[in-house]
Amino acid sequence: MAVIVQKYGGSSVANAERIRNVARRIQRAHAAGNQVAVVVSAMGDTTDELIALAASVSANPDPREMDLLLSTGEIVSCTLVAMALRDMGVGAVSMSGEQAGIRTDRLHGKASIVALDPARVRYELDQGRVVIVAGFQGVNEEMDVTTLGRGGSDTTAVALAAALGASLCEIYTDVEGIYTADPRIVPTARKLTELGYEEMLELASYGAKMHPRSIELAAWYKIPVLVAHSVKDAPGTLIHDIAGGDGVEITKKVRGVTYEKGVARITVRAVPDRPGIAASLFDPLAAAGVSVDTIVQNASAERLTDLSFTVDKVDLHRALDVVRPVAQQMGAKDVVSNDSLGTVSIVGTGMQNAPGYASTMFRSLADAKINIEMITTSQIRITCIVGEAQVPAAVRALHKAFELDAAS
Amino acid sequence: MAVIVQKYGGSSVANAERIRNVARRIQRAHAAGNQVAVVVSAMGDTTDELIALAASVSANPDPREMDLLLSTGEIVSCTLVAMALRDMGVGAVSMSGEQAGIRTDRLHGKASIVALDPARVRYELDQGRVVIVAGFQGVNEEMDVTTLGRGGSDTTAVALAAALGASLCEIYTDVEGIYTADPRIVPTARKLTELGYEEMLELASYGAKMHPRSIELAAWYKIPVLVAHSVKDAPGTLIHDIAGGDGVEITKKVRGVTYEKGVARITVRAVPDRPGIAASLFDPLAAAGVSVDTIVQNASAERLTDLSFTVDKVDLHRALDVVRPVAQQMGAKDVVSNDSLGTVSIVGTGMQNAPGYASTMFRSLADAKINIEMITTSQIRITCIVGEAQVPAAVRALHKAFELDAAS
Repeated sequence: MAVIVQKYGGSSVANAERIRNVARRIQRAHAAGNQVAVVVSAMGDTTDELIALAASVSANPDPREMDLLLSTGEIVSCTLVAMALRDMGVGAVSMSGEQAGIRTDRLHGKASIVALDPARVRYELDQGRVVIVAGFQGVNEEMDVTTLGRGGSDTTAVALAAALGASLCEIYTDVEGIYTADPRIVPTARKLTELGYEEMLELASYGAKMHPRSIELAAWYKIPVLVAHSVKDAPGTLIHDIAGGDGVEITKKVRGVTYEKGVARITVRAVPDRPGIAASLFDPLAAAGVSVDTIVQNASAERLTDLSFTVDKVDLHRALDVVRPVAQQMGAKDVVSNDSLGTVSIVGTGMQNAPGYASTMFRSLADAKINIEMITTSQIRITCIVGEAQVPAAVRALHKAFELDAAS
Repeated sequence: MAVIVQKYGGSSVANAERIRNVARRIQRAHAAGNQVAVVVSAMGDTTDELIALAASVSANPDPREMDLLLSTGEIVSCTLVAMALRDMGVGAVSMSGEQAGIRTDRLHGKASIVALDPARVRYELDQGRVVIVAGFQGVNEEMDVTTLGRGGSDTTAVALAAALGASLCEIYTDVEGIYTADPRIVPTARKLTELGYEEMLELASYGAKMHPRSIELAAWYKIPVLVAHSVKDAPGTLIHDIAGGDGVEITKKVRGVTYEKGVARITVRAVPDRPGIAASLFDPLAAAGVSVDTIVQNASAERLTDLSFTVDKVDLHRALDVVRPVAQQMGAKDVVSNDSLGTVSIVGTGMQNAPGYASTMFRSLADAKINIEMITTSQIRITCIVGEAQVPAAVRALHKAFELDAAS
């Protein structure tokens, strides 16, 4: 009997009507003869409301307390889904992360799953019951509740699918699947029928709706993941091992165009170029909790170099406070910043061994009169940093240049 | 170092301001050199809101799911109190019932504590931290969350006090203590300075604010319990082992007058009197979940007897549905009922070996033109069932007759 894991996001369980809708969908999968385990997020804005509640009693809530507090959101939604299923005559039982055997490290607020013992989930499935697991949470060695960070329910679902040897992990959300580009920017964007794990990982990291860690986990355990709409019955996007080559021919080399806004850049100019300058800058930034994205260091004449990196716009002032004194110590000329940038990326496994994608990308942007500020690449992705205001035009230009538009 | 357990009810933690107030009170007890463990109820109307949420997805929510759902209310409040304490610089850690070592039987919705292993609580106390425990909950053998029923947080507090060998269990609530009578009915009612366990048990069973099971537990383990106001700094009422006789002289033999409204009576008339008739009636009532209170069976001539008993008014129709067919089978003449009754009781340990209290009570009620419908007694209590409309007058008459009025 096939095991299927389904995951429903917060908007899919935001009220009683939607919970009953979710229960009906689960009922169908169960009635079709599958063993069904379900992971749910907290209802609607519950997590934000709990965060506000914590802020009302403490300026700086303790992370351990915060995790135990936030974990209640998913407990509430998983018990309600179980109740709704029982009301329809479907045997169902809810479980906290702990009861579902999810063990994590001790990093409160963004813990990683280190082990998952699915014995109890499997027992209930074998009794014919549907199991509803609270997403986003686990327990550490001290049996303290931890949370996996935003988007953590995706990770719970894939980890559970892996532990159960599930044939499919279905991620139900408020979009119909993964698109070649954001349909709000590119009206001709197409929904992708399928996608490789690496491609999805790059898309997820750069805007698309799924937590990157969950994709990594799915790739590692080769769990097929279906991203689909929780209400509409449209076919979603299947993320699976395309590279494994089960007859799938990759005709389009570029699979999608993604973007980010709200990117800021800091440039430390004319730094005396000697070993260790990167570490002297990025260690204190990491200590200050500032996440650094793209880093570019120019080769230089005269033993002077320019070092640029991007951060989230909301972190810019904090980052500058850290960087300025360090730059001065290093003997840099000065520190300049730009807080109106964005990224645009093309993604596709087919790009790996085929030349010409970068030049097509740069030419298309130039034709659209878009200046490229920085460039960064991975094996299957090329990202250009451009002016924030030009991001939509850049996405449209690339979507057209790589022939991703839907056949009309 | 003395261990103190404090318990705060839902109204005491209903919002951020009250939570900070509670934290300040805890801080004072901690700063005074005590080891402090705290039990909290869910914020304000949280439990009712969660029950409504369950009702919105299921006509008949599963008890196991309901318990896991309801348990989140106390988790939220205990984490918030811990955060507020940390914000004041007091080391504090919250714990679920499970983490606090509270094991119960499997009776979801009204579980009983069967064991309490305070190892983790004690460890944290020994580190100098305040421990905030979620009231009202525990886990059963299957590690499923159970709840102890309404008022269960009192029981959590006393059980924790017993397990820790606490010198005092403080129950903070929205009243200043235990009164000789309800001050809304008897303006001259006095707050009692102290009270014996048995007296409190009778008062708690008949209207006063504390869960009877928690009093039984306190009596068993001889834990002194202070009932006091969570905001005002007025001295409360100390419930302790008065009978143990540490120099306390009991001058007033009657300690208080309590009452209930909403009482209904069912009378099965002219039943052929043979062994087993009580069982044939009360077994099906118990199976139907109807709680029976006072039972009176009249001795009779001609082998016929009248059997009367009281139930909560809201259960009357359900009870009649059970009783009528049984009465017919027994050959009873008929079944009559009255749904407008109440009780009035006098309570006091000093009554045990002293005569004349009953006659004073009956005479006072007769003087006030109040008809007595039924009478029931315990070792330290006499209860009269009277018309519901006459309850306030009865309470005032008895409060005066037994000289409980405050010295003016």
